[in-house]
Amino acid sequence: MTEPELTLVAHELLADFCAACFEKLGLSRPDAELTSRSLVWASLRGTDSHGVVLAKEYAERIRLGSINPHSLYTVVSEGPATALIDAEAGVGQVAGFRAMTKAVEKTSHAGVGIVGVKNSSHFGAAAFYSMMAVEHDMIGFTTTNAPPTMAPWGGKARRLGNNPLSVAVPAGKYPPLVLDMATGASAWGKIFIAQQQGRKIPLTWALDKNGQPTDDPNVAFDGGFIQPIGEYKGYGLSLMLDVLAGVLTGSGFSIHIPAWNDKDQPQQCGHLMAAIRISCFMPVETFRARIDELIRLMKDCPIAPGSDRVLVPGEIEFETEEQRRARGIPIHSAVKQDLVKLGEELGVAPPF
Amino acid sequence: MTEPELTLVAHELLADFCAACFEKLGLSRPDAELTSRSLVWASLRGTDSHGVVLAKEYAERIRLGSINPHSLYTVVSEGPATALIDAEAGVGQVAGFRAMTKAVEKTSHAGVGIVGVKNSSHFGAAAFYSMMAVEHDMIGFTTTNAPPTMAPWGGKARRLGNNPLSVAVPAGKYPPLVLDMATGASAWGKIFIAQQQGRKIPLTWALDKNGQPTDDPNVAFDGGFIQPIGEYKGYGLSLMLDVLAGVLTGSGFSIHIPAWNDKDQPQQCGHLMAAIRISCFMPVETFRARIDELIRLMKDCPIAPGSDRVLVPGEIEFETEEQRRARGIPIHSAVKQDLVKLGEELGVAPPF
Repeated sequence: MTEPELTLVAHELLADFCAACFEKLGLSRPDAELTSRSLVWASLRGTDSHGVVLAKEYAERIRLGSINPHSLYTVVSEGPATALIDAEAGVGQVAGFRAMTKAVEKTSHAGVGIVGVKNSSHFGAAAFYSMMAVEHDMIGFTTTNAPPTMAPWGGKARRLGNNPLSVAVPAGKYPPLVLDMATGASAWGKIFIAQQQGRKIPLTWALDKNGQPTDDPNVAFDGGFIQPIGEYKGYGLSLMLDVLAGVLTGSGFSIHIPAWNDKDQPQQCGHLMAAIRISCFMPVETFRARIDELIRLMKDCPIAPGSDRVLVPGEIEFETEEQRRARGIPIHSAVKQDLVKLGEELGVAPPF
Repeated sequence: MTEPELTLVAHELLADFCAACFEKLGLSRPDAELTSRSLVWASLRGTDSHGVVLAKEYAERIRLGSINPHSLYTVVSEGPATALIDAEAGVGQVAGFRAMTKAVEKTSHAGVGIVGVKNSSHFGAAAFYSMMAVEHDMIGFTTTNAPPTMAPWGGKARRLGNNPLSVAVPAGKYPPLVLDMATGASAWGKIFIAQQQGRKIPLTWALDKNGQPTDDPNVAFDGGFIQPIGEYKGYGLSLMLDVLAGVLTGSGFSIHIPAWNDKDQPQQCGHLMAAIRISCFMPVETFRARIDELIRLMKDCPIAPGSDRVLVPGEIEFETEEQRRARGIPIHSAVKQDLVKLGEELGVAPPF
């Protein structure tokens, strides 16, 4: 990927464009704006795989009927600190936003809120939701399950998603700590880039179709699997996230989530959001100062040779966001082409 | 380690012995029994590093005054779904047990309970507490922080513990799913065994004192570090567990937890326990059947060459427990010697 293939676009223009497209596709104006905001937010932060590149995917699914833009996102059960939302194959972003909003509301009673979502769709970047809790002086947790691309450790069939976990924590003078990690050692996107560039991949990233480690991206794509981080440990983590997001919510789990390319089928995925009010444990200002000290202890750590600096979770994303807010979001030519085409089909003027 | 070095001991005898020792060391009878039960439970399950081998460690700390056997484990703050216990340098097991007991109690109101512990000590195996929730048809979560042995990714100084996370989930016809994993790629104990046997270790286990991967156990022990699983991902996980167990509870965190060998200093570690009542989301029997299906999907997965079978989290521990309950717990000669000596010092007849 070289610089000339990239077009810089102001995030506001991109957000207006995506929102207009989603509205044309049948989402209410607020739902369209929210979904757009989630994608542009991920693009701003450099999480391009979960950014505006997804607009085309979502549009395709809405047209095929596998994402329902008119879901009511009904709260099907509710307790003092818990709730369950049925997304009715709706938009993952709207379901996720409503779930975390409700989790935060629940904390006003009990200090804790845990809200599940069933029958949902891809919801973009998990940190979009966990960070909602941070705004309210809370620690936020978000997980979702995803189409199976991982084999259980020792197996050779796709049984689990590269399920992500996000935890977001308010700091004081520093930006919040924001972990947003999948349980796999790599994403298919990174393996794809290595394939394009004719490079080998680390032996810890993927397995071939027989469940053996491979450093060849072509072999990985030929029926292979994403390797979990830490071998059986990442497998265990991914399984537990499927328990929370899929089994506990009454949603699909494991192989009951259709493959990513089965675009005409509702994804049936589930999400779980949790918020903990910090003031239940200590004054918020004390907590913020303690987190600042924790961050300082990481940042002040002597640096290993070959490393520039020690980063804390979310740091690089905040830096990227600052740059991209100022200079614009770099859009790859292929993505630009897709967005222009989408705009033409829907009668929305592209932001380029 | 060869068979003749091992002595098989009935778990009941071992439990009686350890409880009698802890009572002599000043713990109340119930606290002594509980602490003993935790250690023998870990030994039964094959988690020998967190088993009766620790009796000598705990005894040493109690004698040095860094573990306080008379703590009141005061609940210092409490809300509808949360609580915080000050362990006052007490026994980690007693603190952990009280915290999870309270977390489970809290669910009767809100369906969720989250209880922190500050100023505590080593608490044994994390799964001992998460599994308490399973008995009540709940999902249990346990974490603790620990003495720093890990560098932040890109750094070369000890800043984080090999902090563990345990999640326990009730099943139907299968035993519960029980994840209990540290965020490091290895434990020092495994590296020590490789050193003893003159074997190399995988390059993903440890870093040398300059923060570079090493396959030489001797180099790892010479001021090196445990590597996090999944590089920066395991670092991020370990950091977030320190936020939950250390920062949020008001306990020590990062370098404020003394090194394991500083035995005369209170450990200042913190724990966090959480329980979620499953019936807030769906009938427990439905959930159990869904977990059984998830387990079946893992167990039925085609096996990769070189692998015997696919395991689910906790499975091997349940199998080991069954064997050791029947045949006895194998005690290594060095551990046997330590226990005999401890018994002599305290006037307790050893179980050998």
